[in-house]
This record gives sequence, C-alpha cells and structure tokens, in this order.
Amino acid sequence: MTDQPVIDLNSDLGEGFGNWPLGDDEALLDIVSSANVACGFHAGDPSVLRRVTEQAAERGVVIGAQVGYRDLPGFGRRFIDVDPAELVNDVIYQIAALDGFARIAGSRVRYVKPHGALYNAIVTHAAQAAAVVDAVKRYDPSLPVMGLPGSEWLRQAEAAGLTTVKEAFADRAYTPEGTLVSRRLPGAVVHEPDEVVKRSVRMATEGTVVATDGSVVSVAPRSLCVHGDTPGAVEIARRVRAGLLEAGVTVSPFA
Amino acid sequence: MTDQPVIDLNSDLGEGFGNWPLGDDEALLDIVSSANVACGFHAGDPSVLRRVTEQAAERGVVIGAQVGYRDLPGFGRRFIDVDPAELVNDVIYQIAALDGFARIAGSRVRYVKPHGALYNAIVTHAAQAAAVVDAVKRYDPSLPVMGLPGSEWLRQAEAAGLTTVKEAFADRAYTPEGTLVSRRLPGAVVHEPDEVVKRSVRMATEGTVVATDGSVVSVAPRSLCVHGDTPGAVEIARRVRAGLLEAGVTVSPFA
Amino acid sequence: MTDQPVIDLNSDLGEGFGNWPLGDDEALLDIVSSANVACGFHAGDPSVLRRVTEQAAERGVVIGAQVGYRDLPGFGRRFIDVDPAELVNDVIYQIAALDGFARIAGSRVRYVKPHGALYNAIVTHAAQAAAVVDAVKRYDPSLPVMGLPGSEWLRQAEAAGLTTVKEAFADRAYTPEGTLVSRRLPGAVVHEPDEVVKRSVRMATEGTVVATDGSVVSVAPRSLCVHGDTPGAVEIARRVRAGLLEAGVTVSPFA
Amino acid sequence: MTDQPVIDLNSDLGEGFGNWPLGDDEALLDIVSSANVACGFHAGDPSVLRRVTEQAAERGVVIGAQVGYRDLPGFGRRFIDVDPAELVNDVIYQIAALDGFARIAGSRVRYVKPHGALYNAIVTHAAQAAAVVDAVKRYDPSLPVMGLPGSEWLRQAEAAGLTTVKEAFADRAYTPEGTLVSRRLPGAVVHEPDEVVKRSVRMATEGTVVATDGSVVSVAPRSLCVHGDTPGAVEIARRVRAGLLEAGVTVSPFA
Repeated sequence: MTDQPVIDLNSDLGEGFGNWPLGDDEALLDIVSSANVACGFHAGDPSVLRRVTEQAAERGVVIGAQVGYRDLPGFGRRFIDVDPAELVNDVIYQIAALDGFARIAGSRVRYVKPHGALYNAIVTHAAQAAAVVDAVKRYDPSLPVMGLPGSEWLRQAEAAGLTTVKEAFADRAYTPEGTLVSRRLPGAVVHEPDEVVKRSVRMATEGTVVATDGSVVSVAPRSLCVHGDTPGAVEIARRVRAGLLEAGVTVSPFA
Repeated sequence: MTDQPVIDLNSDLGEGFGNWPLGDDEALLDIVSSANVACGFHAGDPSVLRRVTEQAAERGVVIGAQVGYRDLPGFGRRFIDVDPAELVNDVIYQIAALDGFARIAGSRVRYVKPHGALYNAIVTHAAQAAAVVDAVKRYDPSLPVMGLPGSEWLRQAEAAGLTTVKEAFADRAYTPEGTLVSRRLPGAVVHEPDEVVKRSVRMATEGTVVATDGSVVSVAPRSLCVHGDTPGAVEIARRVRAGLLEAGVTVSPFA
Repeated sequence: MTDQPVIDLNSDLGEGFGNWPLGDDEALLDIVSSANVACGFHAGDPSVLRRVTEQAAERGVVIGAQVGYRDLPGFGRRFIDVDPAELVNDVIYQIAALDGFARIAGSRVRYVKPHGALYNAIVTHAAQAAAVVDAVKRYDPSLPVMGLPGSEWLRQAEAAGLTTVKEAFADRAYTPEGTLVSRRLPGAVVHEPDEVVKRSVRMATEGTVVATDGSVVSVAPRSLCVHGDTPGAVEIARRVRAGLLEAGVTVSPFA
Repeated sequence: MTDQPVIDLNSDLGEGFGNWPLGDDEALLDIVSSANVACGFHAGDPSVLRRVTEQAAERGVVIGAQVGYRDLPGFGRRFIDVDPAELVNDVIYQIAALDGFARIAGSRVRYVKPHGALYNAIVTHAAQAAAVVDAVKRYDPSLPVMGLPGSEWLRQAEAAGLTTVKEAFADRAYTPEGTLVSRRLPGAVVHEPDEVVKRSVRMATEGTVVATDGSVVSVAPRSLCVHGDTPGAVEIARRVRAGLLEAGVTVSPFA
C-alpha cells in the first residue's frame, strides 16, 4: 500500500425479478464505486437492468457484469455441471445483454464478476473457469475480471492476458491460508459493524486481515465486497465507506 | 422496379432451444441473404445464437434480430399484453444479446424484425409498436427495421426516423387491400411450389401480387420472407432463390 | 343474509419464488379462512407450495388453487392469448401439482380461483372462461370455483354444473352496475382502514355496498377478498376480521 | 428366470416442449409396456402430458413419472447441486402434476423413474437419493421406483420400504462389475440392431449380459429400457419387442 491508499467498493445490484424486488439498489449506489449488476440468468430482468444501469451511470458508479448460471429458481446459488462449451456462450449472452443497457445509459460494462455458485465453482473448477475466461476474452479482452486471490479463475484469466482485480470480504473470516472460512462453519461471517469497518480499513490501508488463528494474512485487495440484501447490510456498507474515508482511504473504482 | 431488379430473401433461423432442434439453419443460410436470428426470449439459446451468427457471418448472410415476446412455452406466438414500458427493455435486451454474438462472429446485428405474435400485434397495436420503435432507436437509430407495408410498426418507425424495409410473403394469399389473408381462412397459404416461385418472381420484378379477388395489388417489397421449418419448406425456398436468379433478379441483402 | 351472517375471508398466498419472498403468509393464515395458493406458473415454487399447504392445513385454513397464466416474469398480470385447448391443460397441471402438496399436508385443494390477468380476462373472455371451467370439471367436478358475480367465468361454471362462490372486495370501489371500478381510475381502491372494515361488515351482514354514485348495490358475497402483499395490507386484513367478528359475523370457509 | 420369462419394456416419452416436438411418442406406445412420461421440469409441457397420458391409457401402457432437475435449457442432463430439502418438493410437484393428467385419462402414475443427470447422480449421491425417496414416500408409499441395480437410489428406496424395479439397458455395454460403461468411453453403446435384440433376449430369459471383458454378469432386470429419440431407435425398439416375443418372453408391465 502507498501513503495514499485507494480501494474500490463493489456490491451485487439489480437482483430483483419482475414483481419480486430485492435489496435497495439506490441506497447501495450511493455507497459503492462499482456495481455488479445481475444479467437476467439467475436474477434481474430487462427493466431492472435498464433502471440500475441508468442509476449507476448517473452517479458515476462503474458497471460490472454479474454473470451466473441459468437458474432463476435457484438464484444461481446451485452448482450446475454445465458443459463448458455452452457456459462460454451463456456468459457472452449475459455480458452482451447488460452491455446494451450500459451503452444506452452512456456507459459500458467495465468488468466481469461471476456470481454465487459459479463464483465458488471456478475457484477450483478449471474447465468452467476456462469457459468464463474464454467468454470475456471473446467479448472484449480489455475487460478486467474480479475474483478471489489464488483462485483458478484469476490464475487462468491472468494467463490469458486479462486484467485481474483481487477482491476481499470485510465481513468474512479468513483461514491462515488466506481463503474464506466456509459459510457452513461457525464464525464464517463477521456481524459486528465496528469490527467489519475495522477490518475494511485494515484491508485497504495495510492489505492484511487477521485470520481465525490470529495470524496476519496478506489479501491486498483492489476491491472490497459489501452486501446490501438486508436493511442492516446497507447500513454496515454505509459505515464501511464512512470508515474508509475517515481513515484517509480514497474510495474509487478500479476501472 | 428498375430494369435490374434486386430483392433480399429473409428467413427465421436459430429457433432451436437446448435439446430441441428446429429447422435446418445451415441449408437456409445457403439460400437467404438475411437471417432473422431468434434471440432467446421465444426461441434460441446462447449456443444456438453463437453457432448461427458464426455460420451467417462466414457466408456473408446479414444478421437481423428476431425479437419476440418472452414466451418459450408459446414460441412467441401468443399475444401478451406486456406493459410497453417493459417491452422496450425486453427488446433492447434481445438485440444487445444477439449483437454480442454477431460482433464476436465479426459482424453486427444489421436490422430488427419482430416475430410471431409481436409481429402481428404491432401491425395495429400502437403502444407496443411504439415500444419496439423506441427500443431500436435507443439501441442504435441506424438499424433498419423490417415489417409489413402499411403496418403501424413501419409507420411509427418511419416517423421516428428509422429506415424501414418492406417485406412480402411469396406463399401467403393477399387481400385486395394488400393485407395478408388470415391463416384461419382457407387458402391463406400457397402450397404449390411452382406457384410460390411464380409469385416471388412477380413480386421481385413487378412489385405486385394477384389478390384473392384477382385484382393486382402493389406490395413493392425490398425483402421476401421464405420459411424453413419443414424439409418441404427448405426445398421451396431453394426453388424461390433459383427462380429469382433465373428471372434475372439479383438476390442481395438490403443492409 | 340470515340473522347469523357467515362470511369467508380469502387471500392470495404462496406467491414467493426461490430467493424472492413475497407477502407474509403466516400472518395471513391467522386471518383468512381460505388461502388462494399460487401453483408455480406465475408465482410460487414447489418449496413454497409445500410450506404454505402445511401451514394452512395445520390451522384449518382451506386451500384453493390460485391458477394463472404461465408467466413468472409478469407475475400472471399480463393477458396472454393462450390457445384455450392449451389453457385447459395449463390449469389442470397447476391444480394437480398443488393438490399433491395439499394431500401430503393432510388436506386437499378445495376450490379454484384464477389469478391476475386470467381472473380479469375470464370476466368476459368466453373461450378462456370455458377452458378454465373445462379444466376444473375434468380434474374434479365437485370443486367449487370462486369469482366475480356476473362474470362469464361464474356463468359458464354454473352452466357446467360446478358450484360457484361469489366474492367481493372490501377495498375496491363499485360501479352502480355492481362491477369493480377500474384500477386505472382514481378512487378505485379504498385505502382508509376504517372505511374498509365498515364496507366489509356491510357486505357480510347486508350483502350490499355503496357504489360510486351513492346507490346501494347488491353483491351478496360468500367470500371477501383481502390483500396481504404489504405490511399495511396485513394490518387492514386483521382489522377486517376483527370488525366482522365484532359485528357478529362468523368467519368461516365455504368449503 | 422361470420357464415363462416376463419382462417390462420402458421408454422415455412426452419429452416435447411447446413448439418443439421430440421423439415419436405414438410409435413407442405401441412397443413399450411402461412409459416414463416427462413432467415439465426438464421436458414436457401440460399439453404434451395430457396427450401422452391419454394415449398411454388407451393402449393400456403403464404411466410412470420421469422426474428430473428443473432445467429446461439443459434437458435435465446437467447435474444440479439442489438442496435436498428442495429437491424433495421439486419431485413431489412433478409426480403430482403428471398424476393429475393420468387420473383424467382414467389411469394413475404407477411408478417413478428419475431422468438424465438426476438418474445418474443418485446412483451414488446419497443426499439427493434420499430426497427422491422421501418425495415418493410422501406422495404415495405404494409407488414402485425404477433404477439401476446396485444404485444408492434403489438401496435407499428398499430400506424405506418402497418397491424397487431393476432395469437394464439392452444397448449399453456393461463392466464386469455390472455397471454401465461410461458414454464417454468407446463402445459404450451397442448400435447393431441384431446384437441389441440378442442381448435383450438374453437379459430377459437368463437375466445376464456379457460384459466388456467377456465375463457373464447377472443383471436380472424386471424392465428393459429402450430408446426412441431417433427413427432408428424406434425401429430397434420394435425389433427388441418382436425378438422377445419370438423367444417366448411375455412383455408385460410390472405395475
């Protein structure tokens, strides 16, 4: 970290569908610098995409494609053993559709961040990771991709010449190896707002986090992921932003 | 018509979905000059779109967006009373998704032709016609739109400054007013191949068709629509093309 | 009305889908005597159906099939010009699926109430009304059907020998002819809780409502529909129930 | 096998969807004794279900529920890591919906056979196998279930008190351990019609099959699965039936 630390704040937006709203997109757009916008395969519909891209563009929030499995009933949270040759096309379709709305709003899709079960799968699933990398490369090889440091996804993306953006989670516990503690284990999620803010500032200024065993782990994120699917989550996200600014961190998109 | 008549041949392609194939896309691509490619809302899936756009681009066949209602179970053939404010976005989404694949194939979406019940609805439904016009204009105001002469759709498109392309149907009976005889009436579809070829040549060279009452009606199409969803249909389309060439008509895309 | 008035209270339940909740099903189940449970075509998923049917059965709330168009993106609120021959089967499918869960919960589907745009369409659309009547008759001719007095739907159902249940809306304005004032017109919905309670009691005890022109119209409902899709709506529904009991009305299912 | 061998012939039917037909249901219904009818989650729509159940009932062909993952785009052929607590309900929903049509046709769903990736998954996936067993048991514990001998699915079903029906595949190569050779390996499928007939007769009369290494393996099927998704497949199925009858085997449903 330099003497003038900079961090991006990203969050999932545009996850409503038809008559079913989800999250408070407008509140989050005043907090984050990058919006991972759902593209219609696991969440989001065309009118949601239109609205969120316009609101993001108005506020100068950078738009990213939150691509996922084609699984509305499962919200993209269930691993699907999609043929990688088809997954490539599913991802292209999603990026392109969202990019259409981003253009109309006077912006563009400026990065890609996989969602849910796809995000988790390609931490290790080489063939699916390759499919998503291939999709981005074909659509626009200048598009940065966001993910977990050490993941197969970022490793392959880098090998393919894509720009990679490492992210960290202020509200998740880390193992001494620098991976996330599974949500199935107790203590996986940090709920205490002050603690989340403190961790965020440390990640942004020192690039480190204290792991479950007390050791200090380097995560060096360019972006911090905050959540917004509950009123409480939005409030924590707001405090994270305020805490970062107070600590002299510049909140600024990477793209 | 000039002394060197030119006509475009268009057909619906890319209408398979997942494990369900439909039509013979490759055979048709050797016949038509413009391919109306389904975009995934009533037919087509991302891998179908990828394949068809690549095959079209390889052959120099122009790619158009076959936009429709969001209705896979009904194949887009049932009128849906969609809120026009949402229909705009449904159409943008479809054009943008297909355009992504067209770009990757080294081409672009070069026109828009609504499909099925949407095509029929906007012959008269002003609010839905306005929605589709609005979608095209927002996505790319230089995109031509294809439809029935005299339709609300083409009238509004023209008023909005879009380029309009009139099409005719070689295998459909026409009323003395120049509209299509409803498919529910006997004689609506011309099945005899020689007759279809003869009508095609007349439409392309003289710009006219003999209506059900024997009167001669001006249709002046820039494009002729041929079908390909049955083996017989593909054969007729092939003969239409051959008949046009034989009659000295140039088969050439409008875009 | 007799000296001991009886009324049913019905409401739409089970309208969540996957990760998207909707309404407060449990709160409503403590208020209503009949639950119109969504069947998965416009809302509801199998796990929602399972939970709501079990909760309804535990409380002795009667389960009805809230059948609708196959239109998750539109929540069943858009008219679809479905071929009646297919609509019959769409409706059978929905009733049967819900009935499976009702049986497992130790109950049964005991009535059918169409939803949204289908409900509105078959007030006048004879062919679609006939399709829904046909579906109910084929599935179980002893199943009562619920709807608007004077609708094509109830008229045809009665002619087909089905038991019909007339419902009224405590929070909707009525025309002098006894039909609902269109939601597009001002004053279509009564928002003032006391007024809604007062109208409910009058409907239940006298069978009448005061129309927009001040005239008294007979509606004679066997069931009153209350809404629950907002926290305010649940509170009004609770007050309607309390008001009815206070006025000596027995709240009791018709089935 | 006794001196009067009996075998059931089963096949997948009702796998069309909307405008997309698949297979020749009517031809197959004249060949098989049991029809695994798709239920709408990976294939089949309500009108397909209606038609196939009626045609099956007319011919005395037994109706089984071909349950699968909720995955129309993937035809149920992709493993989905569905929460078992939700899979139970997905399966109940499908059985119940199909049973509605079976009842209307004067029959009932008389067995359950999982499809595609679900079929393959529960050969070993204990939690998903338990979910499908639980679904059948809750819906109707008298329903037999069909599957691979030695599978977790049949093992758990038996432990739960369900009737199990072992099936074999006349056109699939077997390992010496009695499992199917993976479709990814060469020689997995037997294409030569005479050979398929010969294997069928041996399976039905002796209960054995010759494995890839020449050893004789006991499979003792109560049902033989034949395919019908290509014209060639239907012809082979027809010859399998003829060959069985010729060899003195009675083709008869187990249910």
